[in-house]
Amino acid sequence: MKYPNALKKEKINTFVNHKNRGMSLEQALNMTNGYYLENDIAVIHKKPTPIKVLETKYKEGQKQIITKAFYDEKSTTDYNGVYKGIYIDFEAKETVNKTLFPLSNIKKHQIEHMKKVIKQNGVSFIIISFIALNKIYLLKSEILINEINNNKRNITIDFLEKNGYLIKEKINPRIDYLSIINSLYFKEDL
Amino acid sequence: MKYPNALKKEKINTFVNHKNRGMSLEQALNMTNGYYLENDIAVIHKKPTPIKVLETKYKEGQKQIITKAFYDEKSTTDYNGVYKGIYIDFEAKETVNKTLFPLSNIKKHQIEHMKKVIKQNGVSFIIISFIALNKIYLLKSEILINEINNNKRNITIDFLEKNGYLIKEKINPRIDYLSIINSLYFKEDL
Repeated sequence: MKYPNALKKEKINTFVNHKNRGMSLEQALNMTNGYYLENDIAVIHKKPTPIKVLETKYKEGQKQIITKAFYDEKSTTDYNGVYKGIYIDFEAKETVNKTLFPLSNIKKHQIEHMKKVIKQNGVSFIIISFIALNKIYLLKSEILINEINNNKRNITIDFLEKNGYLIKEKINPRIDYLSIINSLYFKEDL
Repeated sequence: MKYPNALKKEKINTFVNHKNRGMSLEQALNMTNGYYLENDIAVIHKKPTPIKVLETKYKEGQKQIITKAFYDEKSTTDYNGVYKGIYIDFEAKETVNKTLFPLSNIKKHQIEHMKKVIKQNGVSFIIISFIALNKIYLLKSEILINEINNNKRNITIDFLEKNGYLIKEKINPRIDYLSIINSLYFKEDL
C-alpha cells in the first residue's frame, strides 16, 4: 500500500518469480491441495503412481522393502477428489514451450478417462504450466477433447487466453484453481 | 425356472460359493468397478498403493526398474470415483471373524479422511466382507464414525443387519454396491 501501483506490481512479480524457482508444478499443487485439506475447503489428492511390485524382502526388525518393481503404464489422471459435493478430476502438465502446449503430451487412455468422468457429471480439466512464461492455465476437458476431435496438435497460448482461465498465483493457496471452479460452477469467489 | 424354489436356491448358493472360492474382495471389487466402467455406469478405481521410490535403474533397451522402495504408511481409503455426479469414496475390508468386525482394522487417519469427505458432501462408506459367512455389508461412514466416537471396539453382524446393507452377490456386477447407493441417494434401482 505504500508503493505507487507500478512499483508495487514489480515487487510482487519479483516475489512470484522467486518463490517459483525450483518448485515443480506438482510440488506447488500438492501444497495447494494441502492448504485446501487443512482448511476444510476440499479433499483433493494426487493419485499415487501405479507401481507393479514383483519382489519384496524383510530385513530383521525392519519394514518390508520392495526390491523389484515397475511403473505401471495404465494410469488415468494426476489428481482427484471432492469439493462442495462435486467430483474433481484433473491432469497437470508443465511445458518449457513459450507459445503452445503439444497435445501429444496427453495420452489416449487419459482422454478416455476424461470422457467417462464428464459422462458421470464429474468436473474434468487440465492445468498447464508454461514455465518460461510463469503462467498457469486451467482448460476444461470438454474443450480439450473438442480440439483433439478436430485433429488439432497443439493448444496455443492465444487459444488458452480465449478458452481457458489464467490461474493467478498467490502465496497461499499457491495455485488456487478452485477459485476458477467456483466462478464456473458456483458463481462466487473462494 | 425349471426347479422348485428350494432346489433353485440351493443351486444358486452352490454357484455363489464356488465363484467366490479363491477370489479376494479386492479382485471382486475390481471386476465390479470394471463392469461399471465398461458400461458407463460409474468411474470408480482402486487408488494405487502409495509407494516411496528410493532407487531405480535402467537396463539397456529396457524400461526403468525400481530397485529400492517402501510402502507409504499414510494412505487414505481404498477406492474413489464418481457416480451420477456424486463423489464416491470407500474402504474395503475382509474378515475371517464370524460374528464381528474389529474396528482396530480402520486406521485413525482413514477416519479423518472419511470425516473430511463427508464435510465436502461426498458419499463415504465401508464394505466389509465376512469370508466364512459369505456375506458382504455396506456401512455408511457416518454410522461407523458414530460407533468409534462411542468407544465401540467392534461392529457386530447384528449391528450390520440393523444399520448396514447386505450386498447381494451377483454374477455381473459381482458386488453391486451401487444398487445400495441408488436406493439411498437416488431412490431407484440400478
